[in-house]
Amino acid sequence: MPKVHNFSPGPSILPRQAMEAGSRACLEFQGTGLSLLEMSHRGKEFIGVMNEAISLVKELLGVPAGYSVAFLQGGASLQFAMVPFNLTDEGDTAAYTDTGTWASKALKEAKMFCNVKVLASSKEANYNFIPKNYEIPKDVRYFHVTSNNTIYGTQLQTFPNSPVPLIADMSSDIFSRPVDVSKFGLIYAGAQKNMGIAGTTLVIVKDELLGKVKRKIPSMLDYKLQIENESMYNTPPVFAVYMAMETLRWVKQQGGVAAMQKRNEEKARRLYAEIEANPLFKGTCAVEDRSRMNVTFVMHKPELEGAFNKAAEAAGLSGLKGHRSVGGFRASIYNAMDVDGIDALVTVMRDFAKANA
Amino acid sequence: MPKVHNFSPGPSILPRQAMEAGSRACLEFQGTGLSLLEMSHRGKEFIGVMNEAISLVKELLGVPAGYSVAFLQGGASLQFAMVPFNLTDEGDTAAYTDTGTWASKALKEAKMFCNVKVLASSKEANYNFIPKNYEIPKDVRYFHVTSNNTIYGTQLQTFPNSPVPLIADMSSDIFSRPVDVSKFGLIYAGAQKNMGIAGTTLVIVKDELLGKVKRKIPSMLDYKLQIENESMYNTPPVFAVYMAMETLRWVKQQGGVAAMQKRNEEKARRLYAEIEANPLFKGTCAVEDRSRMNVTFVMHKPELEGAFNKAAEAAGLSGLKGHRSVGGFRASIYNAMDVDGIDALVTVMRDFAKANA
Repeated sequence: MPKVHNFSPGPSILPRQAMEAGSRACLEFQGTGLSLLEMSHRGKEFIGVMNEAISLVKELLGVPAGYSVAFLQGGASLQFAMVPFNLTDEGDTAAYTDTGTWASKALKEAKMFCNVKVLASSKEANYNFIPKNYEIPKDVRYFHVTSNNTIYGTQLQTFPNSPVPLIADMSSDIFSRPVDVSKFGLIYAGAQKNMGIAGTTLVIVKDELLGKVKRKIPSMLDYKLQIENESMYNTPPVFAVYMAMETLRWVKQQGGVAAMQKRNEEKARRLYAEIEANPLFKGTCAVEDRSRMNVTFVMHKPELEGAFNKAAEAAGLSGLKGHRSVGGFRASIYNAMDVDGIDALVTVMRDFAKANA
Repeated sequence: MPKVHNFSPGPSILPRQAMEAGSRACLEFQGTGLSLLEMSHRGKEFIGVMNEAISLVKELLGVPAGYSVAFLQGGASLQFAMVPFNLTDEGDTAAYTDTGTWASKALKEAKMFCNVKVLASSKEANYNFIPKNYEIPKDVRYFHVTSNNTIYGTQLQTFPNSPVPLIADMSSDIFSRPVDVSKFGLIYAGAQKNMGIAGTTLVIVKDELLGKVKRKIPSMLDYKLQIENESMYNTPPVFAVYMAMETLRWVKQQGGVAAMQKRNEEKARRLYAEIEANPLFKGTCAVEDRSRMNVTFVMHKPELEGAFNKAAEAAGLSGLKGHRSVGGFRASIYNAMDVDGIDALVTVMRDFAKANA
């Protein structure tokens, strides 16, 4: 079997060493004679894992004082509810931009809790660009953005300066580049792209935002309670937190998020260059908004897509099928994808163009 | 190193074959060339896992028609909120019995959503028995019980006939014995005792109970939506669901829940017999309410507890320390604990009694 290059949008490619560590931990962990899977989360071994995972988040992103880090459950989808649950009272207003399916779901969920002002939307253009001309009102509780739109292949290249707490769903590009955390009120991210496996969700929150609303928040959805309990209000998703720790160890070994950014930019550059140069393909997004995580492209002759898909699969390229909302192809090239994977894809694209010239 | 016998209350002992399968799946899954950890949850491989896990739940517990099965996130603690969120409107009343820490947390959480009637409590006796003399009112939305009280070592030997939907937290004894699911409106259980690893929660619910309330339910907390989406409204906790499937495969291979019950009863019989016969130890619970999952016991001379703990650890017995609410010792002897583990503990207790006669 040829080496498989995994372009899946998520759950997605992980560093090999993290998967190997996970495999070993399933059998035996730290000389205890027990598997990590069967160990108490209150034991010193797992407490060490949780502490290291949180420390790595703080170190890699340069999280400033006054912010807390938590590993929760429920994915970004639960954060869509937890953000307005914790940060608004009934009658309050929150602002959102609508830049894709996930942004749209986030603002829809918020409407259960507060008034929602949609400042800008690219929905009419099938979300193929990031709207930029809008003003963030000063009288809203927060402003919510999606940093990378996994399905549509667009990404915020810079984050706005917001007069109100800026909240970002960074599920699909966290740890792919440096971010100035001090610009944000809250950042959340499902782990299963750049940070590990499905089953845990990272939250970084400015402490001063919490505990300000009057509504009753169910314990498991209460950021303050979760943070006070160091992400162990109840049994945490032990293995998912462990895999996050191993993945972040790898990010650190590679040189941290600045090194990730450099490599991700080079990967994206090579792939977008081929899409532009290749007579069979075209990108789907505004050039200035193109994502360095999810590269979406279609064929000038859609009738060739089936054949290209087969050629890609035969070459060991997996998970390239585009989301049904966009069609065509999507190459998800998260941190753990190496340049060889990009080159393998570029080679298949070139060979296919020659064969179909 | 001697074989370690894992008496941890949860996360807890799992079938060895399940942990070995998990270890292999971390490296490569079903001949795809990919790790299960990096595969799309929408691919046929994981859909097969989810379907088999749900089928095994239905088969092993004999789930009747008209019930749905879901694998969610957040543990039993999130269910404490989801049950009243989905099944009551403001002003409604729900009934609970208060039989331990988790029952108490469940009813406290319900108070955020509805009126709560506590029908009976053994709190004054440090929860060392299961109260039995109470009447379930007909004008409440549901009646909630905790089937096994992990911390205090008591267990419902039979379930009441309820005139209103009976809701049970079975986190620490599900799949340990047959249950007549048709008696229940809803059963939930965190996976990390008898059903796999931390990170997923089983819900079995009678369909006709859902969609009846007026309140707005956040999408991730909406049973109906989760079931309509076959537990994939968002990315499910892939590895935790896989480990549940592997654990349930093992239960089936062992002869199902009736065989589990037989073995669990024999294990509990041996251990309780030793506690009664041994001059140094005594049980903490009413005999008729003793749990077959968590066996709690203390020493007549508490000053010997440290020495006994050392003797147990030296013999490879792990996780025996009692919860601080009860003190002494707790042997959690879930499905995957074999009779050899019990015999090893009994031997240490006997040897310790001889040495301290």
